[in-house]
Amino acid sequence: MTQEVRVDLGHRSYTIHIGEDLLSEANLISKLVAGPSALIVTNDTVGPLYLEPIKKALSDRKVDVVTLPDGEAHKTLNSFQTIMDALVDGGFARDTTVVALGGGVIGDMGGFAAATYQRGVGFLQIPTTLLSQVDSSVGGKTAVNHPKGKNLIGAFYQPGGVIADTKVLSTLDPRELKAGLAEVIKYGVALDPTFLSWLEGHMDELLSLEPSALSHAIRRSCEIKASIVKQDELEQGPRALLNFGHTFGHAIEATAGYGEWLHGEAVAAGMVMATELSRDHGWVSDQQLQRVVKLIKAAGLPTEPPRLSKSDYVAAMGLDKKNLNNQLRLILLKDLGTGFVSDTFNTELLDALLDKYLES
Amino acid sequence: MTQEVRVDLGHRSYTIHIGEDLLSEANLISKLVAGPSALIVTNDTVGPLYLEPIKKALSDRKVDVVTLPDGEAHKTLNSFQTIMDALVDGGFARDTTVVALGGGVIGDMGGFAAATYQRGVGFLQIPTTLLSQVDSSVGGKTAVNHPKGKNLIGAFYQPGGVIADTKVLSTLDPRELKAGLAEVIKYGVALDPTFLSWLEGHMDELLSLEPSALSHAIRRSCEIKASIVKQDELEQGPRALLNFGHTFGHAIEATAGYGEWLHGEAVAAGMVMATELSRDHGWVSDQQLQRVVKLIKAAGLPTEPPRLSKSDYVAAMGLDKKNLNNQLRLILLKDLGTGFVSDTFNTELLDALLDKYLES
Repeated sequence: MTQEVRVDLGHRSYTIHIGEDLLSEANLISKLVAGPSALIVTNDTVGPLYLEPIKKALSDRKVDVVTLPDGEAHKTLNSFQTIMDALVDGGFARDTTVVALGGGVIGDMGGFAAATYQRGVGFLQIPTTLLSQVDSSVGGKTAVNHPKGKNLIGAFYQPGGVIADTKVLSTLDPRELKAGLAEVIKYGVALDPTFLSWLEGHMDELLSLEPSALSHAIRRSCEIKASIVKQDELEQGPRALLNFGHTFGHAIEATAGYGEWLHGEAVAAGMVMATELSRDHGWVSDQQLQRVVKLIKAAGLPTEPPRLSKSDYVAAMGLDKKNLNNQLRLILLKDLGTGFVSDTFNTELLDALLDKYLES
Repeated sequence: MTQEVRVDLGHRSYTIHIGEDLLSEANLISKLVAGPSALIVTNDTVGPLYLEPIKKALSDRKVDVVTLPDGEAHKTLNSFQTIMDALVDGGFARDTTVVALGGGVIGDMGGFAAATYQRGVGFLQIPTTLLSQVDSSVGGKTAVNHPKGKNLIGAFYQPGGVIADTKVLSTLDPRELKAGLAEVIKYGVALDPTFLSWLEGHMDELLSLEPSALSHAIRRSCEIKASIVKQDELEQGPRALLNFGHTFGHAIEATAGYGEWLHGEAVAAGMVMATELSRDHGWVSDQQLQRVVKLIKAAGLPTEPPRLSKSDYVAAMGLDKKNLNNQLRLILLKDLGTGFVSDTFNTELLDALLDKYLES
């Protein structure tokens, strides 16, 4: 059964459709492409697997396809220009729709192209990884990377609709599936204790791709994120809570070398660190910390960072190693399911935590 | 005395400051740059003339400058990338402000950079041509050109403030000044009969750069445009009225070769054609048509197109030469000061008008 999450953002509201084998529902796909044409943006891994049913669903329109090489390395202004050239050369008008078929990289680039072609055309997202289904489906963040930094060029732009088909996850690399589960777990640990409990009872089903469990996990993740984004569409305040585990995680990714650790893997270990620091402040109990560790372990994700150099790690956190208290804001827990933004945590406890996990 | 126009767009509202010698008001400039840094984007004509007072007003901040070559030929994704590189290389954070100092090209590119750097930073517009003061100051249109079409890559993005200094118009090429007056006249003819009468009485003062007349003309133009944009921020409906004279004008520009005729010159002749077609339908009188012709002539602007090939011209209007009625929408007049969108005009009258002005 198809589940729907309505993302309520005034005249930019849209619906996320979640369910098994939605790509075979030609009517749904057709309904979400309003105009007479579409440009499908995909990559050379996903395209061969899932392009056909979409082209078939849109066989009554003019449809062109841009197939980019797979991978974050291609999330560039150059690829963006390739998409723009395809839109211009194909004579696509302002009533067209860009369909992004792929993971987060394709979604971000397709979205940025939709946001900027003729100052904004239609945008349909068909995320094909668990991470993009639970994360990029909500929030309207689009971007490409600059050689010197990720996501530095982009826009906030909402899709007209999202189709999250759980069946496509069967062709996803299991390591990518687990990395996606890290973000799912994040919603439970930082924002919803009920969902956290549900995850504790259903992790095996998720790992074995049981459709109704997947649909529920995607739906709740999108609902929780949508309620936060609604309060804070342009990321000025509460949206920071979605970064639970991410400051510690980003520093792992950067210090270990991007690509060594998947984003979700680094976030998993980062969530343990953030929960442990909360425990050290007395905000959550040791038992609660152990629940988080156990859940992350059950998802097949790492529960601690690799043995990195503390000074490199601290630099990657954006900190001065002699003064950990230079305006760092961390998302910590007041309780399981209750994250908050803290800039008054005890830096000695942070220092001790880093000493525990890193090489000095 | 400084005049102010408030552009009322909810939480994206901002103020246009209009007056003589506003660039010497350091406090005003400083107030409109909220954060600790600014990147000034300008060109090699305007920069040498007006950069210094702005840098001085911001001397307590980190300020970098990008100076691009002057001209529409440089309104490219390449120049956009140059601005992005300067933002990244300078380590500008999300609390920075892009200051666009120049005409429409600089405003459009600076605005697109502000819209997309880290998904949106501050934006201060300091338009230095009459055209950009009355046109680009309101509406939030930002863009760069694609090799195959103008403004195909862009975004709607509102500035945090606009400073229109009438004194800078003294260094503007007189031909550019007149071209700017064409857009001013447009507001009167298509949207405000009172302003039209005022223009008829003050054209000499405008041409001799009398400061209070300039301020009034800029203020009313911005007010009229702001009231339209407020109704139609994303250009779905009434905003089309702002294109009065533009369908005929664009076809002149395209057929004569871009650059031969300035945009404002082409719009001037286009407004005569649109008014004449309205007269031919009996919606305005011959006397009213003559008022429009006289005003455009008084501004030193052309009142008819050059002798172009009719078939080229019709193609440039996006029409099939054998069927002028293929869904063309024109902005015509019900009365002086009252434009409307017409897609039911008499194509035989259009055909006769084109025969009058063009070579068959």
